[in-house]
Amino acid sequence: MKIAIAGAGAMGSRIGLMLHQAGNEVILIDRWPDHINAIREKGLIGEFEDHEVIAHLPIYSPEEIVEDHANVDLVVALTKSMQLEAMFQDIQPIIGKSTFVFCLLNGLGHEETLSKFVPKENIIFGTTTWTAGLAGPGHAKLVGTGSIEMENLDPKGKAFTLKVLEVFQKAKLNPIYSNNVRYSIWKKACINGTLNGLCTILDCNIAEFGSLSVARNFIETIVGEFAAVAKAEGIELNQAQVIQAIEATYDVKTQGLHFPSMYQDLIRNHRKTEIDYINGAVWQKGKNYQIDTPYCAFLTQLIHAKEELLNAK
Amino acid sequence: MKIAIAGAGAMGSRIGLMLHQAGNEVILIDRWPDHINAIREKGLIGEFEDHEVIAHLPIYSPEEIVEDHANVDLVVALTKSMQLEAMFQDIQPIIGKSTFVFCLLNGLGHEETLSKFVPKENIIFGTTTWTAGLAGPGHAKLVGTGSIEMENLDPKGKAFTLKVLEVFQKAKLNPIYSNNVRYSIWKKACINGTLNGLCTILDCNIAEFGSLSVARNFIETIVGEFAAVAKAEGIELNQAQVIQAIEATYDVKTQGLHFPSMYQDLIRNHRKTEIDYINGAVWQKGKNYQIDTPYCAFLTQLIHAKEELLNAK
Repeated sequence: MKIAIAGAGAMGSRIGLMLHQAGNEVILIDRWPDHINAIREKGLIGEFEDHEVIAHLPIYSPEEIVEDHANVDLVVALTKSMQLEAMFQDIQPIIGKSTFVFCLLNGLGHEETLSKFVPKENIIFGTTTWTAGLAGPGHAKLVGTGSIEMENLDPKGKAFTLKVLEVFQKAKLNPIYSNNVRYSIWKKACINGTLNGLCTILDCNIAEFGSLSVARNFIETIVGEFAAVAKAEGIELNQAQVIQAIEATYDVKTQGLHFPSMYQDLIRNHRKTEIDYINGAVWQKGKNYQIDTPYCAFLTQLIHAKEELLNAK
Repeated sequence: MKIAIAGAGAMGSRIGLMLHQAGNEVILIDRWPDHINAIREKGLIGEFEDHEVIAHLPIYSPEEIVEDHANVDLVVALTKSMQLEAMFQDIQPIIGKSTFVFCLLNGLGHEETLSKFVPKENIIFGTTTWTAGLAGPGHAKLVGTGSIEMENLDPKGKAFTLKVLEVFQKAKLNPIYSNNVRYSIWKKACINGTLNGLCTILDCNIAEFGSLSVARNFIETIVGEFAAVAKAEGIELNQAQVIQAIEATYDVKTQGLHFPSMYQDLIRNHRKTEIDYINGAVWQKGKNYQIDTPYCAFLTQLIHAKEELLNAK
């Protein structure tokens, strides 16, 4: 299968590399010049736990994707949320009538963005539990294991989605065909919508957050707001189960000692966050359905205030 | 007049000292052992801008106030909000039938506390614009000038309140008889209820807060919650005027470069805050009136979370 990875950061590098190793024709697309140069000069280094792989994959910046590029069968979207729209504006030349887009971004509101560029029957959504890190430009650190849920948005997309499933299966990416991927996306958004913003604004790790006497009340209130808006979109979140999934992360033996990605982006690296696609998306969607989401609103505003104070880029 | 200062920190030291200089019989009451010892050994040092005063005032810890102390005419309450109730439990022996209490604490909810110990007709409320600092135990730094608004809670208290006004006038404390001290208290609470909590949780000074694009929306929302609850208590806050007063503090030539007292208490000194008597009081009062105050609720919870994370005492 001819596959473009739109957003070839840590996770995009992992998935691109594993799909390449399974014999697919993979191209990477990313905006980071150092990363592009490193991969062009030395190839993409994939440092697995017990071995290292170097793959000489073609990599382009989005604006290099011009008319003479052939269409691809599949675009795997793995940009930062706020970069999704600009990415798809630039990569139109590789998207033909039969090209599918598989969106693996975290957060909410991407369906609306992708629908501007691709018909609904060509869109696949998913979530993943794989992790990945970058040791530097062109150098991915790939520890642990994971799986990928996927589902076509429209029944017409099912046949091709099952083909993608087979391709991912061969690449050992452990795909699972989901019967309710929207549910999984909302559930994951609840986890990010509590731990990310709250650990960032309180300047603490996940276990420290979990130890707070107010932790349960915070997550109940915020998950309640997510659930009310999800319900308006036809998704009935099991709030007790979602809260249990959040509280499972407090354990210091698993994720407890980690700082969520938003904390690392904003507090450590002074980079803008994805809050508008998590709590901010619930706030905006809530407005449309006339559902009050004051904790999501206030948390979104606090994170944006912190971005301004830290002059985040 | 025989006057006890219940809570002789920086502001209590200023007012006690100035009342003493005007010829009143002043006793200080405070819980800080180093402060008590310093004043007993060397007297209370008042370092004004252009001269220094040493006053040998009697000082007691609250539990030393026992039956053989004579009643006082007036108790000026200047504790931290959370210490008010315990203070009045301890100093019952000096409170007689005709003793008045003049409450100068910041924040809300003190009327309910004092009413447990003193009949309403013996309660005076006030606010002050005087400032004061402590250079160390027993050593007050007293710069600038200010005024004190005061009003009896009950019409029966007016005659004595006017006597207190005269005493404060002689002490050059610039008292003003107020016709709506509750309004002034709520207005001041709005200023503290926005700048204190938000600068503390965002880790910024007042000018930095004022520069945020979301600043106006934050203060409008929080002042709106205060105003809704104040209205239920019979006080019609002029929200535009309150917002103007808050925004006037952003100026770097006045208070802009300062960090609010809550920031200093919690972030610098790891001490518990008065949030329960500001936003927390609005939240609790709101519950009684079935008025939603989610921004006050969330901000109160965030500050308490921060207290726990910093192990504030």
